[in-house]
Amino acid sequence: MSARRPAGDAELRPTELETIAWRAGRVRLIDQRRLPGRLVYLDCRRVDDLVDAIRTLAVRGAPALGAAGAYGVALAARTLPTKRGVRAAAQQIARARPTAVNLAAGVEHALAAYQSGGAEAALDAAESLAADDVVRNRALGAHGAALIPRRARVLTHCNTGALACVGYGTAVGVIRAAHEQGRRPSVWVDETRPVLQGARLTAWELDRLGIPATLVADVMAGSLMAAGEVDLVVVGADRVAANGDVANKIGTYSLAVLAHHHGVPFYVAMPVSTIDPATPDGASIVVEQRDPDEVRRVAGVAVAPEDVAVDNRAFDVTPSALVTAYITESGVLEAAELLEAAARP
Amino acid sequence: MSARRPAGDAELRPTELETIAWRAGRVRLIDQRRLPGRLVYLDCRRVDDLVDAIRTLAVRGAPALGAAGAYGVALAARTLPTKRGVRAAAQQIARARPTAVNLAAGVEHALAAYQSGGAEAALDAAESLAADDVVRNRALGAHGAALIPRRARVLTHCNTGALACVGYGTAVGVIRAAHEQGRRPSVWVDETRPVLQGARLTAWELDRLGIPATLVADVMAGSLMAAGEVDLVVVGADRVAANGDVANKIGTYSLAVLAHHHGVPFYVAMPVSTIDPATPDGASIVVEQRDPDEVRRVAGVAVAPEDVAVDNRAFDVTPSALVTAYITESGVLEAAELLEAAARP
Repeated sequence: MSARRPAGDAELRPTELETIAWRAGRVRLIDQRRLPGRLVYLDCRRVDDLVDAIRTLAVRGAPALGAAGAYGVALAARTLPTKRGVRAAAQQIARARPTAVNLAAGVEHALAAYQSGGAEAALDAAESLAADDVVRNRALGAHGAALIPRRARVLTHCNTGALACVGYGTAVGVIRAAHEQGRRPSVWVDETRPVLQGARLTAWELDRLGIPATLVADVMAGSLMAAGEVDLVVVGADRVAANGDVANKIGTYSLAVLAHHHGVPFYVAMPVSTIDPATPDGASIVVEQRDPDEVRRVAGVAVAPEDVAVDNRAFDVTPSALVTAYITESGVLEAAELLEAAARP
Repeated sequence: MSARRPAGDAELRPTELETIAWRAGRVRLIDQRRLPGRLVYLDCRRVDDLVDAIRTLAVRGAPALGAAGAYGVALAARTLPTKRGVRAAAQQIARARPTAVNLAAGVEHALAAYQSGGAEAALDAAESLAADDVVRNRALGAHGAALIPRRARVLTHCNTGALACVGYGTAVGVIRAAHEQGRRPSVWVDETRPVLQGARLTAWELDRLGIPATLVADVMAGSLMAAGEVDLVVVGADRVAANGDVANKIGTYSLAVLAHHHGVPFYVAMPVSTIDPATPDGASIVVEQRDPDEVRRVAGVAVAPEDVAVDNRAFDVTPSALVTAYITESGVLEAAELLEAAARP
């Protein structure tokens, strides 16, 4: 990887973030490990660079991973001499994060184009998938905004903003659309341990967008709901099973139970590409264990005995019964409507 | 403050921790801000040193704060020339952490002795309160251990071990007593953001005691319960209202709701001195807001935009309806039995 360039003020306040893009034969992405301290871009020249960026969460978020998968195949097609090599690289990319369905779907999409039309077709497929993501997120946001009462206090988890996507955002996109419509939402931002995507990314994005946000430790959610200070919860999804069960960032399930207990609506916002008809229910979703040092250390500093055992599941599964509705680019859906939406072209 | 001395191996594995004690006219305490990295003692020569130690969480935990309050009055009586000065210092100590009832009670206990018998009486009162704490915790542990099935997987929050007390521990004391009885419990340790008492202190204590422990981010609790991997929850308390509502470390309430949803027993372990008959219910408990930088920074490193708004409530209130039972030195009690237990000498 190369061409990291330091962020100037002009870069820190652009109109719109460009999370991932194709630039001069490279996959260029915002290095999210460096936020909120610095806005730095990372140019991946080789497939290995991109796989490393995906594994280490330089790029993360279901829709962004979809684009990363597709661009990754385009990169493989450009840099590897044989079809066999490209197929192997595609598989390597898809396996970098096993839970996110979008990553594998993005890889497949570009690989199918490559098989029939070669490297250029793979790149075209990736570019159209990326452009499509922003269009779908804006549509999703518009549908979801209608569910946000004026001056609603919205709780969200992890990062589902532009940084999690090619642009605009999913759950944050819903809040953003409500904000653009003058509904004046304010946001409780869960810090989202262990990787702190809420503190590092969502708080930073909302500040850029001028949406009032208050950062809280994850443990605050129940208290805020008990005090009547949360009007609704909206989160994203890494994979939605055919029955509506939702795999998402660890902590989502606890929020869903808490929302249920307090009668607070709990929405999941995601493009229909996140629905995986091949996964019947949550029990069939593979949940990855991540590095124990994500919990033992914060920003490189030890916060626990260095050899303590750790359980660090990246995701949890929220049963569809706890989801009030699914906000998609095809409209606000119930669990029973998901499969049909996923089947539509 | 002075006489910090570096920890040697011999100190790192003593038989029993001495969290707080009177040593040669000073209040000596383990500086818990330095754990788990180093076991360092802090000698408070003046009341201001102790107040600072309490505010900055060098010493914390309801029972330990009770001893700190009493020793603080002894220190004031020894170092200040007038009765008026001692009374003012006592008030200053009691206000250093407003939610913990034990701190104010410890102050009152030693101050009453001082008013009638002078400085020596204040010290005697503090010493007997401290010795009493360990006796009560061991009794509490023995009562609670009977509730822990063999090989139970116990989830706990924050730190309620010897470090939270003068010795032995409350909720951790229950686990410890079960371990000593050969019941082989294992522990899910919540890291307990924002100050990470679980990661820094409880994980360290359990390792010293040879009790198997697995550290998890706070967001894992719901998932673990849904997977049937938690047999019971046991936590401590900073204040228990007359009706049984429990003020404890932020996050306790969310755990209680999650336990309720999953049919997992939820126990609160505390000496009866934690019961405050003057507080009718949870709604009357003052919850302190702590420094926003506890959330914005971890171990001195920024993990969020530096000017982001933060809500950092130190405690939450768990209604008695969510508490399976209260484990005290007087036995395992129901909410309706608390006031009577508190009134017993």
